[in-house]
Amino acid sequence: MSTTMRSGDQLTGMREIAQIGRDSRRGGYSRSLWQPADMELRAWFVERAQRLGLDVEHDRNGNIWAWWGIPGPNAIATGSHLDSVPGGGPFDGPLGVISALEAVAALKKSGLRPSRPLAVIVFAEEEGSRFGVACLGSALMTGRLDPNRARALTDEAGVSFAEAARRVGFDTSGMGPDQAALERIALFIELHVEQGRGLIELGSATAVASSILAHGRWTLTFSGQGNHAGATAMRERDDPMIAAARAVLSVQEAALEHPGARATVGRISANPGGSNVIASSVTMWLDARAESDQATRALVADIAERVGADRFHEDSWTPEVRFDPDLARQVAATLDEAPILPSGAGHDAGILADRVPTAMIFVRNPTGISHAPEEWAELDDCLAGIAALERVLRSLL
Amino acid sequence: MSTTMRSGDQLTGMREIAQIGRDSRRGGYSRSLWQPADMELRAWFVERAQRLGLDVEHDRNGNIWAWWGIPGPNAIATGSHLDSVPGGGPFDGPLGVISALEAVAALKKSGLRPSRPLAVIVFAEEEGSRFGVACLGSALMTGRLDPNRARALTDEAGVSFAEAARRVGFDTSGMGPDQAALERIALFIELHVEQGRGLIELGSATAVASSILAHGRWTLTFSGQGNHAGATAMRERDDPMIAAARAVLSVQEAALEHPGARATVGRISANPGGSNVIASSVTMWLDARAESDQATRALVADIAERVGADRFHEDSWTPEVRFDPDLARQVAATLDEAPILPSGAGHDAGILADRVPTAMIFVRNPTGISHAPEEWAELDDCLAGIAALERVLRSLL
Repeated sequence: MSTTMRSGDQLTGMREIAQIGRDSRRGGYSRSLWQPADMELRAWFVERAQRLGLDVEHDRNGNIWAWWGIPGPNAIATGSHLDSVPGGGPFDGPLGVISALEAVAALKKSGLRPSRPLAVIVFAEEEGSRFGVACLGSALMTGRLDPNRARALTDEAGVSFAEAARRVGFDTSGMGPDQAALERIALFIELHVEQGRGLIELGSATAVASSILAHGRWTLTFSGQGNHAGATAMRERDDPMIAAARAVLSVQEAALEHPGARATVGRISANPGGSNVIASSVTMWLDARAESDQATRALVADIAERVGADRFHEDSWTPEVRFDPDLARQVAATLDEAPILPSGAGHDAGILADRVPTAMIFVRNPTGISHAPEEWAELDDCLAGIAALERVLRSLL
Repeated sequence: MSTTMRSGDQLTGMREIAQIGRDSRRGGYSRSLWQPADMELRAWFVERAQRLGLDVEHDRNGNIWAWWGIPGPNAIATGSHLDSVPGGGPFDGPLGVISALEAVAALKKSGLRPSRPLAVIVFAEEEGSRFGVACLGSALMTGRLDPNRARALTDEAGVSFAEAARRVGFDTSGMGPDQAALERIALFIELHVEQGRGLIELGSATAVASSILAHGRWTLTFSGQGNHAGATAMRERDDPMIAAARAVLSVQEAALEHPGARATVGRISANPGGSNVIASSVTMWLDARAESDQATRALVADIAERVGADRFHEDSWTPEVRFDPDLARQVAATLDEAPILPSGAGHDAGILADRVPTAMIFVRNPTGISHAPEEWAELDDCLAGIAALERVLRSLL
């Protein structure tokens, strides 16, 4: 193993980025695409990869590739993302990137001469926190997301994706399906902190993913008549906050009635949003997931019928992903028969699985909490994850 | 009447400020304290008042006074505010300021030589849109709002009142009760667009206020456990959005059960606010009003019991205001027996009523809608309001 790997009780890489994008208001980290924290993390990755002797390449869709060996066909790819949800934990994303760099360092140090190229990839806007579409970089590359649609997305401040790109000097004109980039990859392996309690219950430090729930995001708008909160009698109101509140409860009720389903309203906004103003409209964001595409579609149709929103718009849709079962078994075998588990969370690996054999390694999260500051991974489990990734990569190189 | 009064189908003053603070996203106007639109409106007022030959004075609490005659005891004061709610209408506030300037212009033009000084006052942050406390400038001046509390208020971006003041060069060290300023005023008259349907139903262009409902604002926080929207099973959740949604419905139910009461949740925010994140907390803002202090307190106690918030914090409280009945009758008589009506909305006049005899003149709002872009006043009704104010001021000067 690399001697750079640990520093005190943390991975060196985790310590190096520990101050970037801290969110004092929400707790945890807020690292959104092309905001200062994300730019700093990208620069850190480039510097770290170059220090390892890797050749860094920026693709047409905002993703960064660091190559060991000459970029070309039959490559093994690994990596994850560096962006976070607002107030997210330290591991969701960075652990996969840092583990990839550490595994490469260890392989290099061991004197391995790979028989094929290896790429460490950092995908852009995996969480969709800024522009609302998750796995943006991988979805653009695979052609799942139309580049014109991406350019027109706006962030909470009303800044378009195209304008945000311009501000950081990224040229969006080349965005879109990148067959040439994809054809270089023979398979992709993503290491990620676990986001549920599966590994706590199994008493295992690592696991291999079998599948990802089908999931999507929708924007619901409820309209009414904005008015004065003091001068408008209760019976004269058309207050959309009431319909929105009922909708939140209906979302929960529907999800509880559909076995295995998950539906969440994690963001809500009243327009105009004055405390002494009856809202003219309320917007809420729905995240819904279930085991199969069909089950998720049925859940969302049920919700749509119950809530009666004035607008019910699909922002994104990701079908169920079944990872390559042969590769999953092979990875699990390399890891001394690590358990094979489904994932409730979406990942870039799920997007790439459409195009290349893909596997995921999960590292135990002792809190079972993710997308929140409490997300955690013990150092020993992180080291076990890196060792697992190293072993898998060694068996493939 | 002044020849500057109308320009096409609008008051000249309304036309002059019609482009300041337009909100293309919400519609209407967003003019918050010390933001660029508010600064522009303040500069416009100073210029307008000086053009009328008035002497402009900035008081210690962010309010602007324009004097006709030497500032001193026994003065008549009139005026209103220039700030707006987010996405508010054009008249709430500016109509009272513009009508005051027009009335002064007409009185001057008629050759009147006043027997006492007259002041036109622009109060700061009447809506409380930026820092959450309504009638901030008048409440500081009368001693109702503690200046230390005001300095510590923060806006949505986390900017403190003290810091926001520093950025526009306003010295907050002198803020607080201003007995010397108040003692100059013998009475205060505020003209305001009506915010309900009272004058539509009565078929009258103007009315006089009898009282203002008791009202207050509270911040309610619901806490839970932030977590991943996909990886957390429904039964494992502690999602504060559910309690918040139930609370919205309980607020409405409670208000409907208390006769004459009004309770509104017009603003809500989930923390951290990611669409794929179960919130760790949800904050909502409650506006509650009823005819008497006791009735409002009973309403809010009922709401507090029903919603069970983790935090239920009083941001502001304004007791019922009964305007000086003799002055109200005198003003109504001057206006050919205009109707005398209660107001559901708070006003700086309500704050000043603690300290000096105070009256309000309402101008008909043909939509009955306020705090929204649909708020309106027909030119003829605005001119009737100005004529009414002019007549009242003439009878007092």
